[in-house]
Amino acid sequence: MLVVMQKGASEETVKALVNAIENRGYTARPIPGGERISIGILHNTGSVDANHFQGLDGVKEVIPVTKPYKLVSREFKQENTCIRVGDAVFGNGSLPVIAGPCAVESEDQILSIANSVKDAGAALLRGGAFKPRTSPYSFQGLGKNGLELLAKARKETGLPVVTEAMDVETFDLVEEYADIIQIGARNMQNFSLLRRAGKSPRPVILKRGMSALLQEWLMAAEYIMEEGNNQVILCERGVRTFVRHSRNTLDLTVVSAVKKESHLPVIVDPSHAAGVREQVISLAFACAAFGVDGIMIEVHNKPEEALSDGAQSLYPEQFKTVMEKMKAIHAIVGKN
Amino acid sequence: MLVVMQKGASEETVKALVNAIENRGYTARPIPGGERISIGILHNTGSVDANHFQGLDGVKEVIPVTKPYKLVSREFKQENTCIRVGDAVFGNGSLPVIAGPCAVESEDQILSIANSVKDAGAALLRGGAFKPRTSPYSFQGLGKNGLELLAKARKETGLPVVTEAMDVETFDLVEEYADIIQIGARNMQNFSLLRRAGKSPRPVILKRGMSALLQEWLMAAEYIMEEGNNQVILCERGVRTFVRHSRNTLDLTVVSAVKKESHLPVIVDPSHAAGVREQVISLAFACAAFGVDGIMIEVHNKPEEALSDGAQSLYPEQFKTVMEKMKAIHAIVGKN
Amino acid sequence: MLVVMQKGASEETVKALVNAIENRGYTARPIPGGERISIGILHNTGSVDANHFQGLDGVKEVIPVTKPYKLVSREFKQENTCIRVGDAVFGNGSLPVIAGPCAVESEDQILSIANSVKDAGAALLRGGAFKPRTSPYSFQGLGKNGLELLAKARKETGLPVVTEAMDVETFDLVEEYADIIQIGARNMQNFSLLRRAGKSPRPVILKRGMSALLQEWLMAAEYIMEEGNNQVILCERGVRTFVRHSRNTLDLTVVSAVKKESHLPVIVDPSHAAGVREQVISLAFACAAFGVDGIMIEVHNKPEEALSDGAQSLYPEQFKTVMEKMKAIHAIVGKN
Amino acid sequence: MLVVMQKGASEETVKALVNAIENRGYTARPIPGGERISIGILHNTGSVDANHFQGLDGVKEVIPVTKPYKLVSREFKQENTCIRVGDAVFGNGSLPVIAGPCAVESEDQILSIANSVKDAGAALLRGGAFKPRTSPYSFQGLGKNGLELLAKARKETGLPVVTEAMDVETFDLVEEYADIIQIGARNMQNFSLLRRAGKSPRPVILKRGMSALLQEWLMAAEYIMEEGNNQVILCERGVRTFVRHSRNTLDLTVVSAVKKESHLPVIVDPSHAAGVREQVISLAFACAAFGVDGIMIEVHNKPEEALSDGAQSLYPEQFKTVMEKMKAIHAIVGKN
Repeated sequence: MLVVMQKGASEETVKALVNAIENRGYTARPIPGGERISIGILHNTGSVDANHFQGLDGVKEVIPVTKPYKLVSREFKQENTCIRVGDAVFGNGSLPVIAGPCAVESEDQILSIANSVKDAGAALLRGGAFKPRTSPYSFQGLGKNGLELLAKARKETGLPVVTEAMDVETFDLVEEYADIIQIGARNMQNFSLLRRAGKSPRPVILKRGMSALLQEWLMAAEYIMEEGNNQVILCERGVRTFVRHSRNTLDLTVVSAVKKESHLPVIVDPSHAAGVREQVISLAFACAAFGVDGIMIEVHNKPEEALSDGAQSLYPEQFKTVMEKMKAIHAIVGKN
Repeated sequence: MLVVMQKGASEETVKALVNAIENRGYTARPIPGGERISIGILHNTGSVDANHFQGLDGVKEVIPVTKPYKLVSREFKQENTCIRVGDAVFGNGSLPVIAGPCAVESEDQILSIANSVKDAGAALLRGGAFKPRTSPYSFQGLGKNGLELLAKARKETGLPVVTEAMDVETFDLVEEYADIIQIGARNMQNFSLLRRAGKSPRPVILKRGMSALLQEWLMAAEYIMEEGNNQVILCERGVRTFVRHSRNTLDLTVVSAVKKESHLPVIVDPSHAAGVREQVISLAFACAAFGVDGIMIEVHNKPEEALSDGAQSLYPEQFKTVMEKMKAIHAIVGKN
Repeated sequence: MLVVMQKGASEETVKALVNAIENRGYTARPIPGGERISIGILHNTGSVDANHFQGLDGVKEVIPVTKPYKLVSREFKQENTCIRVGDAVFGNGSLPVIAGPCAVESEDQILSIANSVKDAGAALLRGGAFKPRTSPYSFQGLGKNGLELLAKARKETGLPVVTEAMDVETFDLVEEYADIIQIGARNMQNFSLLRRAGKSPRPVILKRGMSALLQEWLMAAEYIMEEGNNQVILCERGVRTFVRHSRNTLDLTVVSAVKKESHLPVIVDPSHAAGVREQVISLAFACAAFGVDGIMIEVHNKPEEALSDGAQSLYPEQFKTVMEKMKAIHAIVGKN
Repeated sequence: MLVVMQKGASEETVKALVNAIENRGYTARPIPGGERISIGILHNTGSVDANHFQGLDGVKEVIPVTKPYKLVSREFKQENTCIRVGDAVFGNGSLPVIAGPCAVESEDQILSIANSVKDAGAALLRGGAFKPRTSPYSFQGLGKNGLELLAKARKETGLPVVTEAMDVETFDLVEEYADIIQIGARNMQNFSLLRRAGKSPRPVILKRGMSALLQEWLMAAEYIMEEGNNQVILCERGVRTFVRHSRNTLDLTVVSAVKKESHLPVIVDPSHAAGVREQVISLAFACAAFGVDGIMIEVHNKPEEALSDGAQSLYPEQFKTVMEKMKAIHAIVGKN
């Protein structure tokens, strides 16, 4: 932490601040600059709360230097965390693809899609049984029945399943059926849910919140890891911006920025970022080229009849072509 | 819903679309325009999902006309909803002020602050017992003990208390002690929590999410009302923008925009919007002048020692002056 | 400038960086911290470009400490700059109001409005003769004829006039007629125009760009001051955010943040921020309460027939009431 | 344009609005819906200004249907516009690459870089002679001398040159030397400059403004085309968002969204979007995979000594590898 003093701050003011810092148990080290004095805060374990010093007399600005995260940090653990589920590995340079419908709607639907995406080369099946929806009047998912259908699809295809846990109440149930548990963007800072996920033996996909800063996202992962679950896969799914031509704006650079700070794998969901089928395809290619640790993509056998997210779901044949091209692109970039 | 066709869309394409619309049980009404045909979707009760038609052949754009909310809508209920708690009324043109620390820290602290804010004219006491914090290593609140201290402060001052419920697990407990239950910005789309709040006999303050659109915020309130709780107070607390000179950007116009769409009262929290004491004061005056239904503001007896949000908490004497000026401003604007 | 090294950076890496810094003529001062070394860059006059060191070996982050602006800085000049035009003073704690139509449309229009706003207590008349419009097909202003009509209105009412200069080509002409020259939001970083304005004897209103950071805005003012013109009035007019219920989001806190950094006066334009009449009125009250150095507001005698910005222009009678209330609010807050 | 009336608007109110619409020369067509009446505005050539009707009695909302752009619109011209410069073609499905330094700094520098990027397969050379800089104290470019050095590099390598025109004053000079004239992001709505570019015989690269909506960007291109210059290449370069881990956020989906609306080619500049070398490389691959009409990328022979943008410039050897991989990726996606 660096406390920058106002130009011309008196010696007493500086002394008072040094005391305030040391009263909190830190070491203060004044650093005379060209135009003003700054005070470094040393010997802190973990991060210092800028709020403590922000409003004090003579203080111009408080600049954090040490990052607040520990377990998720690459400085804490240098090598990539690799998470293996079925035949897929997230974090080892491969490109596992998770595909399936937004929501499980019926046995026919999920079995048909599961078989298609398996044939096309997907490594895992996705499908929502509990759906967080903006409107209380929208389709909320099949619940337990949806989980059972996912299990059936897993049995038939061998694909592990990824499905969302919306709350602590239904977490046990989801945990029983899911191979990977997803925490949605709207729940990224539902700390009680994060703590529960931290106690799970299952890997967790933690979606980035609509407007989460990199640091907030990593701190959410820290909540999970702090409870003992090290298997966290981060998932970028587009952020909210002023833009109106797509549902969200996919922030690809966050992937490399996170990987610099953290050892955790980062996958991308181009479907929610775009919101429209053609854009999803182009974005999927872009993701494969960017060097992400996996891709999550929505596929539906009859998008025009889907109960949710139809416009952004690929047709099975489209998905097949997309898979082939993503694979070819990944082969080029992988030689990086 | 208005489906705008591409220029030069053939008669068959239009006919196919009309069929697709009517297959879903709506009435389709083609409207020939200057340059292209649009198709109105009529006789829908509630809103139609744009996704159903977005990707279809010949469709250029799908424009929603009817809004998806019902119970929160001013068209559903014309007159303002007024919510009475203790001597305060939210929604009747008065300006009740909720004041207190970010978190309850000790008996001394909360009693001292409660007495100060009461003397200054606050109508309710705020204070967190369960704190949602970005970092798992930050102070998380005193929990049940914090609630008991709030109850003690209520007994001593007569001020009703506002405190946050973070999850369904601890909701019963919070409900037992709180006069108004707050749902925080990060939980605005924690739908399970919203449903639980909808079953509570207590009024609920629903904070706007960091980057929530007006419509998403109202739909979150709809979740609460749909379960039977009509006492929802909306609270703007600043949104996330590209700006770096303040923690958030306070969006005052959302207050009038919401009040046009909805009958619910809207209050504002200038403390979280600004993040810095001087800005909080000026913003509090601005809120009073804008014509809001109440103000929530952080006050601490020793901000420099606060366990959270010290930099944005007012000193008790500052708060007293702020209260006087807000009252005077409100008197001018109220004559609107 | 503070260069933060990666944890475990070797002594050689640190030495290499120290050399790189000193090769550019600065003094490097290594500061050992709890977990890592940082290197302070001292004895720089003016700011250092972070880009120089960002990509170098072992560098984790580069944190600017000194601000890049000089002439606009409050550290350069402590007391407020006060700018007097006619009877109005910007920057001395008073609340001068600039009112008038978006564009000058006809003699009748501008004279009628000028008389109304004068009667209501406005200190200056605004009106565009050269209009920057998003579409080449929209009304572009009356040009020279518009300037002459403004001069006529000034003669009749005694009000000084504020009007926009869109480019260097027509700057001389605008300068001849205007008492204050406005530079629009879209031209905030039109550096050639800024330099020209810097050579003008007239005060300049510099509107904030749609998504300008505080620092970029101040640097734009620095361009003007660096050419010799010290009479710069900054004008906040709303920024672009994800929000859809208002044209822009008014960023009131930027006013106090700028005034902390700079000695220049800051006024606010609630009309462009809101885009809708009712919101303009409430925002105008909020501005008066916040403690701004002036307000610019659109008034039209027949808003429904206006050639531009009709929906956000106040009726003359509305403006009169708004003026009275703003004055009363300012009287309360002024006693700050 | 669709004017949505408030629920329960009286017949007289509707009639008054119909009159207001027809008084402006349009045809009004009331459309009774399930819950409210809407009024379509027909037989307008071009777009209608929503402002005209927004504030009127009984009006709930005004929804634009027709787009305001003409010449840039794909409905006006169905086939892609292809722009040929030297051996490169923008818009025909190929992937021309424009490479070079941010600014021309010396003869050695520009010749060395020009030869490198040519060898690596770049189709055009970029380099700034007039530089728009946030600070008046930063390096502003070599001016005319810079243009002469670019001409020398063109002569030696045969590569056409792309360079920026900052203002109308120096436009003639830039036009004399440049093969393509660039208009920078900060000047996207410098309408006088756009009009001047519209009179040029040279193709123009129009960068997207920092926070420009798709429609504003196309309208800026409309300004150029309306003056007679049809050779406009649009360039996405990242937009400003709340994000802090990269300079800007690259908005890839705008490319496909623009191409749906317009026949103009769209290229992407990953260098300014990222601001950091490693991110530039990954983003360049993503652009190639997304299916853009060209890529503009910064290369410097000695990035650590560059006078501007050093941290985001690739080393020549890096660029060579990047070119090879982009070519390979494009070959895969091109088979789309």
